[in-house]
Amino acid sequence: MSTTQVSFAELRRHDKKEDCWIAVHSKVWDLTEFIDEHPGGSEILLKCAGTNATREFDAVHAPGILEENLSDDKLKGILEEASSDVPPKGAVSEAREKNEAPHDQDAQINPELHTLINAADFERVASKSLTPKTWAFYSSAATDLITHQQNKALLRRIMIQPRILRNVKDVDFRRKILGHNSNAPFFISPAAMARLAHPDGELALAKAAKTEGIIQCISNNASYPLGSIVESGDPQQPFFFQLYVNSERHKTTELLLKAKELGIKAIFVTVDAPVPGKREADERIAAGSIQSAISGAKATNDKKGGGLGRLMAQYIDKSLTWSDLAWIKETSGLPIVLKGVQNVQDAKMAVEYGVDGIMLSNHGGRSLDTAQPAILNLVELRMKAPEVFSKLEVYVDGGFERGSDILKAIALGATAVGVGRPYLYSLVYGQEGAEHLTQILKDEIEVSMRLCGITDLEQASPDLLNTSDIDHLVRSSNKFPAVPWKVERAKL
Amino acid sequence: MSTTQVSFAELRRHDKKEDCWIAVHSKVWDLTEFIDEHPGGSEILLKCAGTNATREFDAVHAPGILEENLSDDKLKGILEEASSDVPPKGAVSEAREKNEAPHDQDAQINPELHTLINAADFERVASKSLTPKTWAFYSSAATDLITHQQNKALLRRIMIQPRILRNVKDVDFRRKILGHNSNAPFFISPAAMARLAHPDGELALAKAAKTEGIIQCISNNASYPLGSIVESGDPQQPFFFQLYVNSERHKTTELLLKAKELGIKAIFVTVDAPVPGKREADERIAAGSIQSAISGAKATNDKKGGGLGRLMAQYIDKSLTWSDLAWIKETSGLPIVLKGVQNVQDAKMAVEYGVDGIMLSNHGGRSLDTAQPAILNLVELRMKAPEVFSKLEVYVDGGFERGSDILKAIALGATAVGVGRPYLYSLVYGQEGAEHLTQILKDEIEVSMRLCGITDLEQASPDLLNTSDIDHLVRSSNKFPAVPWKVERAKL
Amino acid sequence: MSTTQVSFAELRRHDKKEDCWIAVHSKVWDLTEFIDEHPGGSEILLKCAGTNATREFDAVHAPGILEENLSDDKLKGILEEASSDVPPKGAVSEAREKNEAPHDQDAQINPELHTLINAADFERVASKSLTPKTWAFYSSAATDLITHQQNKALLRRIMIQPRILRNVKDVDFRRKILGHNSNAPFFISPAAMARLAHPDGELALAKAAKTEGIIQCISNNASYPLGSIVESGDPQQPFFFQLYVNSERHKTTELLLKAKELGIKAIFVTVDAPVPGKREADERIAAGSIQSAISGAKATNDKKGGGLGRLMAQYIDKSLTWSDLAWIKETSGLPIVLKGVQNVQDAKMAVEYGVDGIMLSNHGGRSLDTAQPAILNLVELRMKAPEVFSKLEVYVDGGFERGSDILKAIALGATAVGVGRPYLYSLVYGQEGAEHLTQILKDEIEVSMRLCGITDLEQASPDLLNTSDIDHLVRSSNKFPAVPWKVERAKL
Amino acid sequence: MSTTQVSFAELRRHDKKEDCWIAVHSKVWDLTEFIDEHPGGSEILLKCAGTNATREFDAVHAPGILEENLSDDKLKGILEEASSDVPPKGAVSEAREKNEAPHDQDAQINPELHTLINAADFERVASKSLTPKTWAFYSSAATDLITHQQNKALLRRIMIQPRILRNVKDVDFRRKILGHNSNAPFFISPAAMARLAHPDGELALAKAAKTEGIIQCISNNASYPLGSIVESGDPQQPFFFQLYVNSERHKTTELLLKAKELGIKAIFVTVDAPVPGKREADERIAAGSIQSAISGAKATNDKKGGGLGRLMAQYIDKSLTWSDLAWIKETSGLPIVLKGVQNVQDAKMAVEYGVDGIMLSNHGGRSLDTAQPAILNLVELRMKAPEVFSKLEVYVDGGFERGSDILKAIALGATAVGVGRPYLYSLVYGQEGAEHLTQILKDEIEVSMRLCGITDLEQASPDLLNTSDIDHLVRSSNKFPAVPWKVERAKL
Repeated sequence: MSTTQVSFAELRRHDKKEDCWIAVHSKVWDLTEFIDEHPGGSEILLKCAGTNATREFDAVHAPGILEENLSDDKLKGILEEASSDVPPKGAVSEAREKNEAPHDQDAQINPELHTLINAADFERVASKSLTPKTWAFYSSAATDLITHQQNKALLRRIMIQPRILRNVKDVDFRRKILGHNSNAPFFISPAAMARLAHPDGELALAKAAKTEGIIQCISNNASYPLGSIVESGDPQQPFFFQLYVNSERHKTTELLLKAKELGIKAIFVTVDAPVPGKREADERIAAGSIQSAISGAKATNDKKGGGLGRLMAQYIDKSLTWSDLAWIKETSGLPIVLKGVQNVQDAKMAVEYGVDGIMLSNHGGRSLDTAQPAILNLVELRMKAPEVFSKLEVYVDGGFERGSDILKAIALGATAVGVGRPYLYSLVYGQEGAEHLTQILKDEIEVSMRLCGITDLEQASPDLLNTSDIDHLVRSSNKFPAVPWKVERAKL
Repeated sequence: MSTTQVSFAELRRHDKKEDCWIAVHSKVWDLTEFIDEHPGGSEILLKCAGTNATREFDAVHAPGILEENLSDDKLKGILEEASSDVPPKGAVSEAREKNEAPHDQDAQINPELHTLINAADFERVASKSLTPKTWAFYSSAATDLITHQQNKALLRRIMIQPRILRNVKDVDFRRKILGHNSNAPFFISPAAMARLAHPDGELALAKAAKTEGIIQCISNNASYPLGSIVESGDPQQPFFFQLYVNSERHKTTELLLKAKELGIKAIFVTVDAPVPGKREADERIAAGSIQSAISGAKATNDKKGGGLGRLMAQYIDKSLTWSDLAWIKETSGLPIVLKGVQNVQDAKMAVEYGVDGIMLSNHGGRSLDTAQPAILNLVELRMKAPEVFSKLEVYVDGGFERGSDILKAIALGATAVGVGRPYLYSLVYGQEGAEHLTQILKDEIEVSMRLCGITDLEQASPDLLNTSDIDHLVRSSNKFPAVPWKVERAKL
Repeated sequence: MSTTQVSFAELRRHDKKEDCWIAVHSKVWDLTEFIDEHPGGSEILLKCAGTNATREFDAVHAPGILEENLSDDKLKGILEEASSDVPPKGAVSEAREKNEAPHDQDAQINPELHTLINAADFERVASKSLTPKTWAFYSSAATDLITHQQNKALLRRIMIQPRILRNVKDVDFRRKILGHNSNAPFFISPAAMARLAHPDGELALAKAAKTEGIIQCISNNASYPLGSIVESGDPQQPFFFQLYVNSERHKTTELLLKAKELGIKAIFVTVDAPVPGKREADERIAAGSIQSAISGAKATNDKKGGGLGRLMAQYIDKSLTWSDLAWIKETSGLPIVLKGVQNVQDAKMAVEYGVDGIMLSNHGGRSLDTAQPAILNLVELRMKAPEVFSKLEVYVDGGFERGSDILKAIALGATAVGVGRPYLYSLVYGQEGAEHLTQILKDEIEVSMRLCGITDLEQASPDLLNTSDIDHLVRSSNKFPAVPWKVERAKL
Repeated sequence: MSTTQVSFAELRRHDKKEDCWIAVHSKVWDLTEFIDEHPGGSEILLKCAGTNATREFDAVHAPGILEENLSDDKLKGILEEASSDVPPKGAVSEAREKNEAPHDQDAQINPELHTLINAADFERVASKSLTPKTWAFYSSAATDLITHQQNKALLRRIMIQPRILRNVKDVDFRRKILGHNSNAPFFISPAAMARLAHPDGELALAKAAKTEGIIQCISNNASYPLGSIVESGDPQQPFFFQLYVNSERHKTTELLLKAKELGIKAIFVTVDAPVPGKREADERIAAGSIQSAISGAKATNDKKGGGLGRLMAQYIDKSLTWSDLAWIKETSGLPIVLKGVQNVQDAKMAVEYGVDGIMLSNHGGRSLDTAQPAILNLVELRMKAPEVFSKLEVYVDGGFERGSDILKAIALGATAVGVGRPYLYSLVYGQEGAEHLTQILKDEIEVSMRLCGITDLEQASPDLLNTSDIDHLVRSSNKFPAVPWKVERAKL
């Protein structure tokens, strides 16, 4: 690596397409060959040619992305006096664009972390602390928010019938997930672009997962490179990786090989979002220029609006089918989990196709609105196809905010529960926030177990629950007799 | 047609009942013989006698109505210097009466069209942009709005259970409706007096339908003459026509013959409104003098209030019965659809009477309040009389605002869905608005299909849905045993 | 009757208990013998002794009460110059006490009668126009208002399934009630102290009933004497009379004889209020000194509050039982209707005891809160004991505000529906208000019938309705097995 | 007892750990030996050494606690001129800390007691009159308040079907509870730290119970010593005692022996709170230094917050099991009631273990949120295990605020109902408030019984009720088939 000093005068000379140097965090790079491959387009690079573009880079990229993607010979040297114009690490661009104070300065008005005592508290703080766009991107869900709201509402309508007079002094809620130890029966569900909430983004989540002994499932649209995230944790720390298959399949192949190489423990193949859902709150606010460090997905406003979720999903392969699973499994050599199963038939097919786990999920209500709430899918599967639970592991996410929510899913047969948005919101406080959230959830699980009269998750069974308030919502046997259609008529 | 110049001085001389000339849009007409037949009464004409009454005419009539109804010899010539006192085309009278700016000037405060991203956005804009009276007329529904609200609410309570891992790259949602091609499984439901929203009224809808490849069902109470609407479209463009049978039957005969002549493709006979429902928001605002260009229906306030819907419905024949359908069919030579079927028994009778289609509709909640929500009628019919769907086409309208709403109806067996109010609201932006709305709905259908794992509407079946949350609302077999009534007692 | 002039000087001389003259509306009465029998106590009379007490009298008494109760020899003559200090007829005392303008002056701010287009409009106007105490007395219901609100809510949850293509030109909704003609299938339910809303009180209702051809059921706690009310109508006009049995039974005997003599057509024996319900809004406002002209019931605040309803109910006999019905029937020689049946068992007992009708009622939610809503009682009775409807007439009241509400009850087997509070509220406009309300209800019934496809109430059957949304609320067969109680334990 | 005068000068000399005198309410105590055993820590005592600490003592302790716990020889004498610096009796420390006026001065703004006419009125007054911390401690419930709210909501959804025409003149609602006379079918449920609401705290409740002839179940966390409470009542007055078993079992033994000695009639063993629930409103406000005079439980803020309920529960034994009941019964020689049964299985086990009563309770929604509402537990138990009611007495609490609420529970088989929070709230008015509340509830029961047509609680049976609106919430037979778990997988 070059350690040559590069003066500002020198830098300024390389300011055109055919000779383009750019300084980022004191390092001066020669991007001439890269300029046409830039996912964000060549224009923006050209604008920065011959300048210190640290500020612009930080607004949309994760640290380390240049080092990871460019060969050493592109590093031309160290910029003189660079520090003076470098903004505080990780200040997010939207903030500046909206004339709002960057995150670090804002932090002082957030309530002290110890005053937050449940997951909803984090949501409340995040709704005020994040930029409007980030808040919209994180919190939004499909169209009328019905699935989003019902995910949570139905959980709360499941009643518990505690048992009494049992010795509940020692409680154990550790869990093995796909064979890996977890200190709690939940994991961090993949959620995109964590860096919008905090400069440390997914790194903070990885470190918190390490401290708390839980597993992080890394989003395919993470803001940090996969390698950086994994390396920020402990060498022994297990990670899962969420995959969106790219319509340019070779890119997925590369990603899977990299995941394998990094020691990722399982691939969560996203199956509920061949196209992105319509998240209107997200569409209504213009997207800045944002890019994922893993998928390279990039957001630019179009005529449908500025939906970050939609814009970053353009690369996803709409033609993925069951028969592609073998390829993913072979390439990665890893256990496969289907993320987004919403139908008993598909759960059974998952067994047939030999996948290792399924995640009952509607993408947190972000894909198809009025899709059946996640917990209802679990109740239905447990009622109608209990054998599935002995063939593969079943996870569920969507609306889980309380220890008792999680305990209900475990009692219904889930191996573990995914917690997504709350972890994004916790990042307002960085790693410490994610740790505090984890401790709260653990504590709520422990208290709930004791109050239920159980000391081990194996004791959690449907007997503990009264699901009568939602049982009628489980799809009954078909009440609609077949019709001898005059198919030719309506068919074009 | 006369092209003689007529001076203002000349015009002014013909200012009495027995010699009455009036100028409209530069043309000077001799209305002396017509004066007693004017549906709006002779007084108003006399007031305008001998003057340029373009402004007064525009306030209540559609362009072309004079040309269509008066013989050429009544045209006395062209008014000199007429342009100066002609108001902007289509400025609506209510606006002026309320001292509000006319529509065209208002337009500048409406949000830009591309910022509207769903049907509800159009409703919101319309609620602010339309005159209070027009808003009340369009948006109102019967008495306590229960059916109106439940139309939509029940749609949202039907859950979807998406399938996964299917190739959804290529999606086709085109549909044949009564044998006519439609680019989407919905059509524009008839809604009266579109010109109150925009000077182009139904013409804009016709043009948008052409551009978007969908079908318009023209209201019997349209503000433009039937001929103008049809001609504003493409010669090959299919139209349907909604019929209110007039108690003066010969007028209906004339109308049907005209429809036939104009190439209309089907007659939607309105059967859910032998009398108009009580729409209280509409009654509470005085009606200006409004007249339909097709039915000639005219609104004047009476002691019950100013309900435009009610006042324009006075001509409707309350004695229409099943046996009259043959006459309508014969006269028009066109397929017959019953608009407003709300009962399984009547759907079966429709089959018996050989009609070509039925539209499950409660008039958008505008007829009888607490009438069963439209989607519930579809669910019930599909459960109890599936054979009906193979004998005729079934449509449904009322509360459909989302692509997923439409998809649910298709999955339940409907051939197509009618979308009414949203198109009226879209007219705030004229043709462009109607096109934008259509594109939004198409996009939502496409996204919903992909997220459901289907690529063709033929794949949409009840299997896709979980109707458990509303199944209990389907009328069960009669729980009320017969009573040996002492009929004579209560009977007068 | 004496027509002697009595001077003020003369009047003033008779100002003590043993010689007490009082002038009321120009007439001077000798009340010396009556002073100890005054239901309002002797003190108030003594205060007025020797004065013109017209104002004080009008505040709490109906006109005519003195003439009806005192013998002619107590009339001492006509007061000179009396008119100057007589207040506008009927100004209510509470208004003055609260420094509010009396009713007549208030009237000018009420909206014009023709702008009221439904029963709820009358309620809204009354809530603003009546004194707070009167509003509380009329509108209040028992404790948490649950039955009160559910009365109405359940009606709206019954769905209608209209039939189509029937000739609905001529509609007949007249009804025979206990053999008496009524122009509509509803009657005026008894409601106490109508004079608090308007000086004409029950007289206005009687006159409106005459004009509109409907039947008034006169409250036992009416503010006018029974005779005045009956006489204010047409000689042929049928009236019903609501009875609270007095614990001093001889008073009830006198009342029944008087009812018989006045040509009353039926006695509605109140059975749902052996004690008054706890109407907290009423209790929270101090009662002025109010007295019924029929029952003599009088209200004075006590330690539980100022509940007019409760205070006026002190005379009611808590020990009334089925065996007393024979006495009431014999004494009055009239048909007997039980008002307040709430249980299928009691409806069957009513048949056994040979009563002529039952009124399913919970006193408009004013007796026992959480008592089953009235329409649910009708649904249950029609399901479980249809034979009852062929043995006696069934009425229902509670929450009926719409023509469609009434039609639903008729379809479920009711002979007629009682409308109570809305008529009290209509009295803000006196007789004219009651007539306007009646016309609105009739119009709503007519429109509803046409939109249902029926022309005669005999065609209204359960077939027209979908009660699925409330069917589950009908009490199922007993799910609670018997317990071999250790009765002795808990029993004192 | 020493009556020596102690001067201030003398007092001040004993101001160190090894020689520590403190004056409280004129009495001077030598606390040298006690200083290290003080549950509140030695620091606070040292701060007060050599001073008149009446103010500090009153803030956290009940009167009499020193006399009860220290031997007579520790009383050194009477302080001269003590009265001047003694604060008004019972002023609570929080008030001062928050710069709010102490309770006694606040009282003048409370509405007059007679204007409170139902239990909710007391709650409303308390919410304004108590310090924020006390309000939070009393009113809070677990996490999302779902059980707390549903406790009440489900009660209101049970409908009553009154009977008519029964002689209801004489009504008797007295009850025997575990053989002891009660003038009403309810008792005062144990609720902690009543003194925070009023200086007389539990003493006021005891006196009100005496006057009204009902039974008080004394909280284990009462603010007054058990002896003081019992003695403040009538010698014949029955008391129950709620027990939290201490993890230092000998302390529980002592407490039980004391209870026996004091003539307590039954021990209510708390079984629904082996650990305290998470009451977030309580956690959010810092706890002052509060201590129970019975359990010695003390509250100090920790990192989870300031939850008084949680902090005072640290001493509770999490390992209590069914087999410990024998010890409690033997030690106390008293009938045992399990407080907090929430499961039919546990109710049956209670019969097997020979306990004398069970209290269906979820701790007023304060333990585990979404635990089944209390009245639903009663409905379920009555449906599924009616035999339990003949083997032991069943009580219920949680959400009971109305006489009709209580009557419903009795009709479902409960022997009596516990009323908790309302009594705490009533203490804003001291003993008089508790009496007024009792009278209100009695009156509501009487009125409800009469309106139901019953005169004795033995007539209250499920026949009186329509539980159809909640029947579907009763847990149905298990819909979840067994799963052949691969237990080894998820188990750590």
